[in-house]
Amino acid sequence: MARVPRHRRLVLPLLCLLFQGATALLFAIFVRYNHETDAALWHWGNHSNVDNEFYFRYPSFQDVHVMVFVGFGFLMVFLQRYGFSSVGFTFLVASLTLQWATLLQGFLHSFHGGHIHVGVESLINADFCAGAVLISFGAVLGKTGPAQLLLMALLEAVLFSVNEFILLSLLGVRDAGGSMTIHTFGAYFGLFLSRVLYRSQLEKSRHRQSSAYNSDLFAMIGTIFLWVFWPSFNSAPTALGDGQHRTVVNTYYSLTASTLSTFALSALVSGDGRLDMVHVQNAALAGGVVVGTSSEMMLTPFGALAAGFLAGTVSTLGYKFFTPILESRFKLQDTCGVHNLHGMPGVLGAILGVVVTALATHEAYGDGLQSVFPLIAKGQRSATSQAVYQLFGMFVTLVFASVGGSLGGLLLRLPFLDSPPDSQCFEDQVYWEVPGEQETETQRPLRAGESDTQA
Amino acid sequence: MARVPRHRRLVLPLLCLLFQGATALLFAIFVRYNHETDAALWHWGNHSNVDNEFYFRYPSFQDVHVMVFVGFGFLMVFLQRYGFSSVGFTFLVASLTLQWATLLQGFLHSFHGGHIHVGVESLINADFCAGAVLISFGAVLGKTGPAQLLLMALLEAVLFSVNEFILLSLLGVRDAGGSMTIHTFGAYFGLFLSRVLYRSQLEKSRHRQSSAYNSDLFAMIGTIFLWVFWPSFNSAPTALGDGQHRTVVNTYYSLTASTLSTFALSALVSGDGRLDMVHVQNAALAGGVVVGTSSEMMLTPFGALAAGFLAGTVSTLGYKFFTPILESRFKLQDTCGVHNLHGMPGVLGAILGVVVTALATHEAYGDGLQSVFPLIAKGQRSATSQAVYQLFGMFVTLVFASVGGSLGGLLLRLPFLDSPPDSQCFEDQVYWEVPGEQETETQRPLRAGESDTQA
Amino acid sequence: MARVPRHRRLVLPLLCLLFQGATALLFAIFVRYNHETDAALWHWGNHSNVDNEFYFRYPSFQDVHVMVFVGFGFLMVFLQRYGFSSVGFTFLVASLTLQWATLLQGFLHSFHGGHIHVGVESLINADFCAGAVLISFGAVLGKTGPAQLLLMALLEAVLFSVNEFILLSLLGVRDAGGSMTIHTFGAYFGLFLSRVLYRSQLEKSRHRQSSAYNSDLFAMIGTIFLWVFWPSFNSAPTALGDGQHRTVVNTYYSLTASTLSTFALSALVSGDGRLDMVHVQNAALAGGVVVGTSSEMMLTPFGALAAGFLAGTVSTLGYKFFTPILESRFKLQDTCGVHNLHGMPGVLGAILGVVVTALATHEAYGDGLQSVFPLIAKGQRSATSQAVYQLFGMFVTLVFASVGGSLGGLLLRLPFLDSPPDSQCFEDQVYWEVPGEQETETQRPLRAGESDTQA
Repeated sequence: MARVPRHRRLVLPLLCLLFQGATALLFAIFVRYNHETDAALWHWGNHSNVDNEFYFRYPSFQDVHVMVFVGFGFLMVFLQRYGFSSVGFTFLVASLTLQWATLLQGFLHSFHGGHIHVGVESLINADFCAGAVLISFGAVLGKTGPAQLLLMALLEAVLFSVNEFILLSLLGVRDAGGSMTIHTFGAYFGLFLSRVLYRSQLEKSRHRQSSAYNSDLFAMIGTIFLWVFWPSFNSAPTALGDGQHRTVVNTYYSLTASTLSTFALSALVSGDGRLDMVHVQNAALAGGVVVGTSSEMMLTPFGALAAGFLAGTVSTLGYKFFTPILESRFKLQDTCGVHNLHGMPGVLGAILGVVVTALATHEAYGDGLQSVFPLIAKGQRSATSQAVYQLFGMFVTLVFASVGGSLGGLLLRLPFLDSPPDSQCFEDQVYWEVPGEQETETQRPLRAGESDTQA
Repeated sequence: MARVPRHRRLVLPLLCLLFQGATALLFAIFVRYNHETDAALWHWGNHSNVDNEFYFRYPSFQDVHVMVFVGFGFLMVFLQRYGFSSVGFTFLVASLTLQWATLLQGFLHSFHGGHIHVGVESLINADFCAGAVLISFGAVLGKTGPAQLLLMALLEAVLFSVNEFILLSLLGVRDAGGSMTIHTFGAYFGLFLSRVLYRSQLEKSRHRQSSAYNSDLFAMIGTIFLWVFWPSFNSAPTALGDGQHRTVVNTYYSLTASTLSTFALSALVSGDGRLDMVHVQNAALAGGVVVGTSSEMMLTPFGALAAGFLAGTVSTLGYKFFTPILESRFKLQDTCGVHNLHGMPGVLGAILGVVVTALATHEAYGDGLQSVFPLIAKGQRSATSQAVYQLFGMFVTLVFASVGGSLGGLLLRLPFLDSPPDSQCFEDQVYWEVPGEQETETQRPLRAGESDTQA
Repeated sequence: MARVPRHRRLVLPLLCLLFQGATALLFAIFVRYNHETDAALWHWGNHSNVDNEFYFRYPSFQDVHVMVFVGFGFLMVFLQRYGFSSVGFTFLVASLTLQWATLLQGFLHSFHGGHIHVGVESLINADFCAGAVLISFGAVLGKTGPAQLLLMALLEAVLFSVNEFILLSLLGVRDAGGSMTIHTFGAYFGLFLSRVLYRSQLEKSRHRQSSAYNSDLFAMIGTIFLWVFWPSFNSAPTALGDGQHRTVVNTYYSLTASTLSTFALSALVSGDGRLDMVHVQNAALAGGVVVGTSSEMMLTPFGALAAGFLAGTVSTLGYKFFTPILESRFKLQDTCGVHNLHGMPGVLGAILGVVVTALATHEAYGDGLQSVFPLIAKGQRSATSQAVYQLFGMFVTLVFASVGGSLGGLLLRLPFLDSPPDSQCFEDQVYWEVPGEQETETQRPLRAGESDTQA
């Protein structure tokens, strides 16, 4: 079994220490509590429940937090020999991304008086950024080492935050659940990065690029927590009251429909009518992605079902027919099929957002127009022009993701980053001490200090 | 390994598409946002926090959602070769049930002006219906195919909704946590259905009807999430304020007591004092079932402990002594032992509800009587007559469940529904592409398009 | 395989029945609903949302509940042949502890008019006590039987409650997230107990004291839920409003930093640069422990990062270098390394609390001083004297834990408690019916009543 070369084994710890040190320094200089977390600035008198958003957002935040770590982490455990890396590197990369996102989003969105002010909204937004990074991780899963992933996360957190700022703040685009900013961006960033890192000799590791019975069950832990909590994901940043409530309802129904179409299509496209666990683990979730932009809008429950059904269909067909073509024709190796779960459903979700936005009327939204489409409510834009901005936001996202992912691929080719060799991809032992399977009764030799001691 | 016959492999996808298409059409015609989810109908001005039930019910709803999908899904993974089907069919069947329950409960409970109006209460109630369907699934686990399960779910969702409507709306029965409407109904529906589908040759698959070490651990994921979130299950639909709070406290203590009696009885009834994982996985949860009706009432913390202790005892004894008799004498094959976890504890819970209702006084409930027993508070019923209605509700439930389950069994015998042969029960490979166990270093032959490509 | 001796197989069930019976009796006499759970005492009119703490504490409570059962339970599944015992005994011991803690904490904290009054705060505090007991369980994991654990839990629940009462109520010490009362107490109680139970012949079971690939993945379920929900753990009992909000933010960032330092140190201290799953499963969580006392204070986000980084470092180094010394020199066998995850980070957290308290000023806390340091706000103590009390509280905790743990060890040596023999440690089969691994196609002989029956 290949080991990490001696002279390179310091790269990961040094990167961790360097990044954590630099980030902590920036925290010391710039990051402060906001008016709801600072003991000296907060008073129940001023902040009745109605104002105190913390209590309205905290349950959703915790659901999102579960999705990022349990959901994405375990979803990627499906590979038979890459479970330690899947959950472990998720843990590592997401932890650092949460800190970076706090800084980057803070500089762009909540920088006042020389300081970034943090509260529960900062945590939600940081988790969203980590979600995008983990989507990209899915594209290169098994083919990149942890030092590469840290650099990827750093670059991606920067570009994610800039893209998000351009869309939400400069263009006034609506994208609460992140069909564009999270799913489309994360997927295409990862796919372009994977394209640059294309391995022509990956077949040397192909025997490990499949699941085992138990690893598929572990992956279903990830799937189900993602599925169950997705209503919280899409609603976490939306307007309090009807906004969050409507988003929850839409997302819930969309996911039920994508599950139905996934089972139908999975059985239809297989040779013998049997279902494929890959489809169930992934495509069933496409209903959450596809309503990311539009679930806060007046999509209608029927609209949610139709969108979810379409997304599950496209995603399942993508796994069956499109992923092999991407690899053979376009030299694009997409380990988790993020193009099918996040890429195509994300773009579909952006387009759905364009359509639903174009149909927005004062009549349908009433006073709620102010919170969903503030620029239309203020008369600064028509529904059509807002729809055009939405469409433009999607293209901006695709440009950022593709250029950024390509640059990221070049960055990750730096030789000292210790990429696994072609024959050692999808293998935990490259980076982890790995135990054997359950022993039965074989005796281990005694270690020094263990024997002959007496109480 | 048996495969799905060629001419039948279209049954599942066509049923999925047909059902989803018809349901979506009904959604388009009938389902609308309610006044708390519709942007045009909702205003913070009118709806202060106190009114906005969404924020008081959403955390409980998410816990219930986790219980339905993670809890029931993984609890059934205990079979050594049926994990894909357990979580996969849970996913499929529950998704469709959520849509149907929205329609059926909506027509019966919230149909105004030609429309069903949905919000978080709709989602909670739909999840409850899915819970009942999954309980029935537990009785026939491993012996029915997905197409059969979809038909079962359709019939059961209809009868569940009608039974629930009769109890809660026509009879004025109290059953917040569903000892009757969910557990008793789901269990006996499934048991009668399983009776009709009795397989005399099931011993051909008996070697698969047991757990493996890791499958038992996966099942414990289900158990523990059910156990931890059960207070939310029972309290999700109760009155805000003291109602939800009291329900949580009662359910919490009841579960601790059923856990204790489960361990005590499991060790007592085994031949050699060793514990049985089946008891711990299931009977420990009986404390949640048994207080389903009464946990919103003034059960007292001691009452909760006593009820839970009794339920754990009855459930464990049921697994040890009653389940084998049900099979050998009554030809009732109950894979998960739902009779022990949901059937008997559900009936006990209904009876406990009768007793606690009969003891209700204006003194004990004060102003709270209005929310727990509105008909007694209004003077339309005495506590005794309310108790009689509760008892009557239990019998109505048993009639609906037994007749419905029997009809369901006949329905599921339709030959094109592709039931697994007796020798292929409890086996994922009938319906799923199943990977092998973790490979070590065996090389797989290259597939076309994988070799000789160069970046 | 060794079995439980015949004459001892009644010990566990009789202890369960005796303890549950006595506890239920005490519940009947003493435990009543409090003013927020009693139907007759509660009115929306008097209790607007702002007052009704239930809704502000319930989501955090549920997260804590998940941590205790899913988190601690699965974290200990890492041993290859002790998964049933890890989750099973967690379930058993924690259930009884929840009841005892309700009584003990109730007598000490909320005993009015001859009764203990319970509500959601009781449940949170009981879960905290169960957390401490499970930490101690981690030290003796695999070396104690369930009857021993029940006695340990009884003694520990008493001493935990007394120690907590002395610190929080008599000394006025602040320790919301329990760096002292939960982590330091639980760890040293378990360690002293383990010292008394030292087994000189434990090498006979050493071949089972390691993980397997899948058992490590199960343990990561525990780790990730602990990590994700730790902000709720530390904030569950803090002041509403800014107190809970600030605690969440501090804990969140501290955990990201302990994760980073864990990965850095794990790679640095290994011989070949490879990561160790034990470190990731445990040391990554030290950031939650170390801010247990100070996360409700004005720690600053940078302070949280620094504290978490330090804790992850100390904890990882502890696993690598200190645990072997503890065993070889001090005859202290610490199965889960609770000294590294809870002991040292707990003491560090207490000291951090001393420092942050000493730095408290009226300026920094403003009106919030009242809720964080009420005695300073009232002018009864200076910040320095409060800091001295904090330090004193740590020493009180260490005394209670060490004396109590030692006594507990003597208690657990009672011969009828059925401790596993040295050669049968870390083995589920001593206490559980254990299935084999997944069978393939071996046929089992028919049992009576299974064959020749016809539908």
